[in-house]
Amino acid sequence: MVLVVILTMSEVEVAGYRGRLAEVLRRENVEVGDEVEVILPDGRRFAGRLMAKYENSPPDFISLKIRSGYNVGVHLPEGSRVIKLREGTAPAFRRPPPPVQDPSLPHVTIISTGGTIASRIDYGTGAVKPALSSEDLVSLIPEITDVAHINAEILFSIFSEDMTPEMWDTIAAKVNGLIKNGVDGVVITHGTDTMHYTAAALSFVLQNPPVPVVLVGAQRSSDRPSSDAATNLIAAVSIGARAPFGEVVLSMHEGHGDDLIVVHRGTRVKKMHTSSRDAFRSVNSAPLAYYRGGELILVERGLNPRGSDRYSFYPGFSDEAVLIKFFPPMKPDILEHYASKGVRGIIIEGTGLGHVSSSWIPTLRRIIRDGIFVGMTSQCVYGRVNMNVYSNGRRLLSIGVTPLDDMISEVALVKLMWVLRRASELDEVKGLMIRRIAGEMNDRSLPTRVSWIGD
Amino acid sequence: MVLVVILTMSEVEVAGYRGRLAEVLRRENVEVGDEVEVILPDGRRFAGRLMAKYENSPPDFISLKIRSGYNVGVHLPEGSRVIKLREGTAPAFRRPPPPVQDPSLPHVTIISTGGTIASRIDYGTGAVKPALSSEDLVSLIPEITDVAHINAEILFSIFSEDMTPEMWDTIAAKVNGLIKNGVDGVVITHGTDTMHYTAAALSFVLQNPPVPVVLVGAQRSSDRPSSDAATNLIAAVSIGARAPFGEVVLSMHEGHGDDLIVVHRGTRVKKMHTSSRDAFRSVNSAPLAYYRGGELILVERGLNPRGSDRYSFYPGFSDEAVLIKFFPPMKPDILEHYASKGVRGIIIEGTGLGHVSSSWIPTLRRIIRDGIFVGMTSQCVYGRVNMNVYSNGRRLLSIGVTPLDDMISEVALVKLMWVLRRASELDEVKGLMIRRIAGEMNDRSLPTRVSWIGD
Repeated sequence: MVLVVILTMSEVEVAGYRGRLAEVLRRENVEVGDEVEVILPDGRRFAGRLMAKYENSPPDFISLKIRSGYNVGVHLPEGSRVIKLREGTAPAFRRPPPPVQDPSLPHVTIISTGGTIASRIDYGTGAVKPALSSEDLVSLIPEITDVAHINAEILFSIFSEDMTPEMWDTIAAKVNGLIKNGVDGVVITHGTDTMHYTAAALSFVLQNPPVPVVLVGAQRSSDRPSSDAATNLIAAVSIGARAPFGEVVLSMHEGHGDDLIVVHRGTRVKKMHTSSRDAFRSVNSAPLAYYRGGELILVERGLNPRGSDRYSFYPGFSDEAVLIKFFPPMKPDILEHYASKGVRGIIIEGTGLGHVSSSWIPTLRRIIRDGIFVGMTSQCVYGRVNMNVYSNGRRLLSIGVTPLDDMISEVALVKLMWVLRRASELDEVKGLMIRRIAGEMNDRSLPTRVSWIGD
Repeated sequence: MVLVVILTMSEVEVAGYRGRLAEVLRRENVEVGDEVEVILPDGRRFAGRLMAKYENSPPDFISLKIRSGYNVGVHLPEGSRVIKLREGTAPAFRRPPPPVQDPSLPHVTIISTGGTIASRIDYGTGAVKPALSSEDLVSLIPEITDVAHINAEILFSIFSEDMTPEMWDTIAAKVNGLIKNGVDGVVITHGTDTMHYTAAALSFVLQNPPVPVVLVGAQRSSDRPSSDAATNLIAAVSIGARAPFGEVVLSMHEGHGDDLIVVHRGTRVKKMHTSSRDAFRSVNSAPLAYYRGGELILVERGLNPRGSDRYSFYPGFSDEAVLIKFFPPMKPDILEHYASKGVRGIIIEGTGLGHVSSSWIPTLRRIIRDGIFVGMTSQCVYGRVNMNVYSNGRRLLSIGVTPLDDMISEVALVKLMWVLRRASELDEVKGLMIRRIAGEMNDRSLPTRVSWIGD
């Protein structure tokens, strides 16, 4: 099932100017999106495109998008004037002629699912909305046709917080079809909010693919001077076209400069900053590779090689799994709530080495006896759960809670959704959850190769 | 109300050896805790104290605590022998004579609440249990009496995942009493799992205290060679005795060496690693200070000075607040579940800049209209929520979801528990939640001083 969600912004309260300022704007017949000049009582002038009011801006400020692309707030005291310079047009977007493509280059398909990398400012609300098609991106960033013959298509146009397991399956089926048709690489543009969840999902479905499957997003939209959209997309296409591995990876900006890109394993990556361009981090694992200026530096040995014949396609996710972040003094009734809703598996993001309040033990014991899988990860983010150290942890083990080693909580949830479609008995679920399937955990008997914050 | 919880481990299944190995041990009349020698068929010998079976160790391995203090697993093939060298005794703990204390030094009280810093291996289960009293610590670490005249008492002996808001209040009342009696500093030993939650709680209750209130723990128990218990406690006492500020802080090991200590603001710190000694990190804020070898280096200016007369005591927490970590495709019925349980405030740990699935909007709108506070933080951990950027975020703002800037999720939860005891109307709750009370958030109009992973 393909779900295409087009978000609309119709609430008038969002545009938001009220009172005196609204009157000034009405008098001059100015609307959001128009180019205006503001003249203050002291003679100073500001020109720009009128933006909608920011939710938290003071009542006598208006927002202008100035030439540089930045939005500024201008204080309009009594006696200020606003002059309309030009009627608001939909932001002029002249698509350059499509570049001539070279069919002898590796064939890469860009699948667009939405997000900042494919978004522009919505001049109705001042907010960013998914708008650009992948073909627009090809026209805007012709460099990508230097390294690959590009096909592009829009699969969804959604914010990634609206992503669902059905959509993961739709993306995976699309990629599987492309692989069967002999594509040389796949790039998936994605909103960054939940890109790491999707990366994990695709890693379990598309095992040992013969070509790179590269998820990529942007933290800054393409109309901002600091946008990382072009750099990230060029790198992703280049990796898709030429990387020597067949792996599901997430590739994004790294560090303080503008040109370094890091390639994370799809099951080992988490968004760790709300706004920084280098927001994605490999957790409990080194990145697989770095990319700069056309060059790929492999960090990880033993990757699945490009062209590998070990490829398997295992689609399907259950929606009967949930993630619970424990906090003191959280009550265990949440477990009963989920059990009553038919949930078959729960990931608990516990404290420290993998703990919850000892008041949870009776309820946990009961729901595990009833056949519900309960796996433990840590809200510390970094490190490995170890429930042998403290007697509370050992009690959790003794009633059947499964420690999930150094798996990221979000990845453990996605894996559980995938496992529950393949196993019905609790023992089977447990067996698959503690088996390394797509690089999502390190066996504790192996020497650990852990990089974490501060290293 | 003082709650003293003594955890007991009586389940025989925890000791855990079964089958052939259990028979060998029974035959030799060996019990957990005994000193034994193991002789393998090939003649190799290992000596140590018999530990209980690790939950996940293979069935023919036994665990020995060897002389160095480490636990090793030894494979016992058929034909191996186990000889009892010495009957197990409770680990010999001879308390040294209490050091002679100098009453002219600053008076510091150590309040023990449990955790690794006050724990030893339980030889019945091989697990770590809270056992040492603060007075034991004084005897074991006489260095602390060089910088302070120490009083010590046990308030609780619990694992910190069992901490409750009532216990936060008990600790705060205890500290308030000590402050009223003229103490020069307070040190609170605490399990590390939820020490940051307690640090936040005390920060809201004990505002601008005239003396340092220092939370401290250990990541490695004091019978391990790599234990950080002594170093951390010595530093905490020294900071309590002599630091020039009156603040609630959390002070722990830092970096790769053995002697650097970092002092975090109580509302700006999070446990970020399950087992590393430098597990605690200041988030969205620089640490307040560093400490090494008796020297304190202040990083932050403008701290509340020692002796300040601005001290206020605001005890009390509500248990009508919860924290929800969103995941795709989490259903909004969880909100209704909590509303039906009488919850008055919810912190949502959203994705990215502060988002949830757009399918949550109708339910969120309804519960907010019913007077439930909903605040937004980010599961990215680092960075600031900003719900003005994307139209999904603006819709959440328009229905009354409150963005909580750069507050840590756990701190936002604790603050909400505290606010709900002081405000009944939604507007009041909202007003207090967005007001900076104990350094828990940075006003976005101020230049931000943010250090995060990778800096």
